[in-house]
Amino acid sequence: MINFETSPDRYRHWKLSVQGAVATLGMDVQEDVTIAEGYKLKLNSYDLGVDIELADAVQRLRFEHPEVRVVVVTSLKPRIFCAGANIYMLGTSSHAFKVNFCKFTNETRCAIEDAATNSNQHYIAALNGTASGGGYELAIACEEIYLVDDGNSAVSLPEVPLLGVLPGTGGLTRLVDKRKIRRDRADVFSTLAEGLKGKRAKDWKLIDGTFPTSKFQEAVNARVQELADESNGQQQSKGITLNPLEVEATQDGREYKYVSLRLYNDKRYADLTVRGPETDSRMSTEEIEGLGDSFWALQAYRELDDALLHLRINHLEIGVVCLRTEGDIDNVLAIDESLEENTDHWLVSEIMFYMARVLRRLDLTAKSFFSIIEPGSCFAGNLLELAMASDRVFMLNDPNRIVEVAKSAMNFGALLMSNGLTRMQSRFLAEPGKLDEIWGHEGPFNTKAADKAGLVTFAPDELDWEDEIRVALEERTSLSPDALTGMEASLRFAGPETMETKIFGRLTAWQNWIFQRPNAVGQQGALSNYGKPTKPQFDFKRT
Amino acid sequence: MINFETSPDRYRHWKLSVQGAVATLGMDVQEDVTIAEGYKLKLNSYDLGVDIELADAVQRLRFEHPEVRVVVVTSLKPRIFCAGANIYMLGTSSHAFKVNFCKFTNETRCAIEDAATNSNQHYIAALNGTASGGGYELAIACEEIYLVDDGNSAVSLPEVPLLGVLPGTGGLTRLVDKRKIRRDRADVFSTLAEGLKGKRAKDWKLIDGTFPTSKFQEAVNARVQELADESNGQQQSKGITLNPLEVEATQDGREYKYVSLRLYNDKRYADLTVRGPETDSRMSTEEIEGLGDSFWALQAYRELDDALLHLRINHLEIGVVCLRTEGDIDNVLAIDESLEENTDHWLVSEIMFYMARVLRRLDLTAKSFFSIIEPGSCFAGNLLELAMASDRVFMLNDPNRIVEVAKSAMNFGALLMSNGLTRMQSRFLAEPGKLDEIWGHEGPFNTKAADKAGLVTFAPDELDWEDEIRVALEERTSLSPDALTGMEASLRFAGPETMETKIFGRLTAWQNWIFQRPNAVGQQGALSNYGKPTKPQFDFKRT
Repeated sequence: MINFETSPDRYRHWKLSVQGAVATLGMDVQEDVTIAEGYKLKLNSYDLGVDIELADAVQRLRFEHPEVRVVVVTSLKPRIFCAGANIYMLGTSSHAFKVNFCKFTNETRCAIEDAATNSNQHYIAALNGTASGGGYELAIACEEIYLVDDGNSAVSLPEVPLLGVLPGTGGLTRLVDKRKIRRDRADVFSTLAEGLKGKRAKDWKLIDGTFPTSKFQEAVNARVQELADESNGQQQSKGITLNPLEVEATQDGREYKYVSLRLYNDKRYADLTVRGPETDSRMSTEEIEGLGDSFWALQAYRELDDALLHLRINHLEIGVVCLRTEGDIDNVLAIDESLEENTDHWLVSEIMFYMARVLRRLDLTAKSFFSIIEPGSCFAGNLLELAMASDRVFMLNDPNRIVEVAKSAMNFGALLMSNGLTRMQSRFLAEPGKLDEIWGHEGPFNTKAADKAGLVTFAPDELDWEDEIRVALEERTSLSPDALTGMEASLRFAGPETMETKIFGRLTAWQNWIFQRPNAVGQQGALSNYGKPTKPQFDFKRT
Repeated sequence: MINFETSPDRYRHWKLSVQGAVATLGMDVQEDVTIAEGYKLKLNSYDLGVDIELADAVQRLRFEHPEVRVVVVTSLKPRIFCAGANIYMLGTSSHAFKVNFCKFTNETRCAIEDAATNSNQHYIAALNGTASGGGYELAIACEEIYLVDDGNSAVSLPEVPLLGVLPGTGGLTRLVDKRKIRRDRADVFSTLAEGLKGKRAKDWKLIDGTFPTSKFQEAVNARVQELADESNGQQQSKGITLNPLEVEATQDGREYKYVSLRLYNDKRYADLTVRGPETDSRMSTEEIEGLGDSFWALQAYRELDDALLHLRINHLEIGVVCLRTEGDIDNVLAIDESLEENTDHWLVSEIMFYMARVLRRLDLTAKSFFSIIEPGSCFAGNLLELAMASDRVFMLNDPNRIVEVAKSAMNFGALLMSNGLTRMQSRFLAEPGKLDEIWGHEGPFNTKAADKAGLVTFAPDELDWEDEIRVALEERTSLSPDALTGMEASLRFAGPETMETKIFGRLTAWQNWIFQRPNAVGQQGALSNYGKPTKPQFDFKRT
């Protein structure tokens, strides 16, 4: 059972220090502290455990240190920045684990970019030694990259030439789409095991600057200070503390304060229930700050995020997740109003961007999601997004009991998908007029109105309700899990593409394909043979 | 050895008839006429041989029948339109063949859409019977879909529920991105083996209309006539004839008039040489029409297209293709001028769109392309696109011999990639100013100027030239072919995405992944077990 919660005092691989507007994330991977057996994390190579700490730090910096403007990512080891994902870990992992590992590390790197874009927290990679593979991919997720010029240190993506796989953390996409490096140079760089150093790396735009060893620290500091000064528009309050989540975990599920995950392992589905807030009172920013991480919007989404990660990595055979809500629609709408009225407040803004990231994690989870809307549920505003993120929405049609959903402003802007659209926009690509119609609707939607508005897939009556859901679950869990993953990835993200959708769609799909191929993972494959005296033997058929 | 050339008098599976502005493509697949052994093409199911005829018809309609405004695609068999790609063919094919088969059929469907967009030739699917799987994917590549309402005929995508793979010909992407069907409905439809009929299919926008059997023909005819009248703006000349290509094929390659393909099978690379036109005289549209398919631009690109298809399907182990040209730069530029000055002439316009499609076929070919620019070459204008489409460009730097490339207007608009950009735009995403610089350059670029302009990856001098290319080839052909395919697919298409890039990037990559998975192709997989009394056994881990 892999646990995703950590905190700086428990970090084994990173040192986080904060001085005024500048934070430093120092990588110092302990080679014996691994998440599984059979490999050592030499040369600041990483496994999932290392990345869980990084993800925690990136998240915590936004909530606990809103005053930070620049985050310097560097190594505490001499001559090596980071050697990337540990190859022996990859070579001995199952296909499912490799895929999930890459997805999580990709989300962490997207979170770094999200901090820069949305929170004015700028990441600088200070490469005091070689950054290879995932090491360079971590650097390229930062806004600027500085490399020491010591005659030895290089940046490289040696995955294709050495391992017969792709750089799995967005590297290729960021080369041509973020740094917009010419495709032929990107091609050369991505097949050059030893990578590039100094001036040529700079000329090819792989890095933003290079300085001799003696001046490296000073030059980086100067740039960091400059950036901190430039970005110092808003003075921000002190942060809040993200305390550990309280959760009761059993083999049947996980019980948090606002979230329940209940597993039906034999039937391969789970119920994931989010409970709404206890009160319908609007809150001031002072009250929200006072509540800190116990404010419903933050706590419920942290719990949801944790539950999703557990579902992905620890419960591989769960095929369908039934999303449910419990509570009062008005209470959820009061939360949304409190948030929407205060978007210029740092904490409110952070909470909203966090909710968006958690919902994107849901969009990117390789499980089928069915929303089940029954009496007592509160699919309203931000929680209506759960339904909009679902592959199907079932809403009970029972004129004798109140079944309602409701929209809020949160459905029309704040909670963007990876493709840069709201879920409503993606849903109604063919009929953008629907958005106005839904926006203009007074009060909650009963089942008939929701169905008419296009918010619902099926609205069975009380006689059919249980059977219809049971049959849908049985049917869904009987299908090929791989075909479903590919199908959902193709249907969930209509409309425009972004770097993020390219990374999770195109690049990930190719990497998953390669991760299956005998040329990588077969007995004679490159990944299996890495570090052995034997050489890989390829089937050279090009497909 | 699969042959890609055919013509209507040799069709076995389609009947093409033209009456004025309306053409009819009738599908009547001969079940015993297959491209390989071991299966029968029942129920208008298809294999590559059927699709080669379809591709030929789509192409021919543009050149031979420019007067055609509407193409009706229908079935000549009762009660069945088309059952899609033949499952037993897929089940018994190699991975490489499945991938290449899907790529070709995808290109054919994109060509149908290209005809509508660029040549005012509109495709109507008249489904006089059930269209399932690839049958519905053929329909959804058309602009409008009409389904007979006989109580039985349906449209369906049963791949996920029945075969454990994806619809492989763009179906999922076109559901949500072309027809913009709501994602939850697309989800239901794509998992419903029996599909949808009549009114519900219409309500969900899977079809554009449904008519009872007795009125079907009449209603379709009325709509076809309406569309033909609407589209009848330009009266166009008679078409030209596309005669069979003359080619001398040996086991070492293929020799056409303007194109040579030479295979070095033991070294796993090939030389693909295009010879420029014989003359530098500009041509009038009358002269171009007079030359017909022997006009250089049409003949050379038809030969190039054929060579590329042979490389893909018949020469799987060739890893690198060296693109070379021979001839006079001025002659190529004269062709480009003749074309660019007459873009409003139907044949010139068709030729330019065809050149664009051939170059896109090159972009989408899973081989590494190196352009080799030496004395005597003519990488100018449209042929400079070969270099811009290459993963790397080598240009000899020898001050004692003339080595030049040249741009023309063709590099700045007509020859769009799948992402909707010119190759120059894709190349210089980071520096759009380069486009003006190159456009403003007087005369040809020598090696130094080409290098400075960013048109060249490496410019070795005469001492290093041969060694550098030899080493680059040896290196490239030693790498994992799968990793290269994934890498090239990720680096070639920077910038915006279109439905076409989604189909060839995202959807294809997922399908290729699924085509490798034991859940599809293992002994217990769904594809392997289709039509057998045994049921598939899935490993239900979700990845």
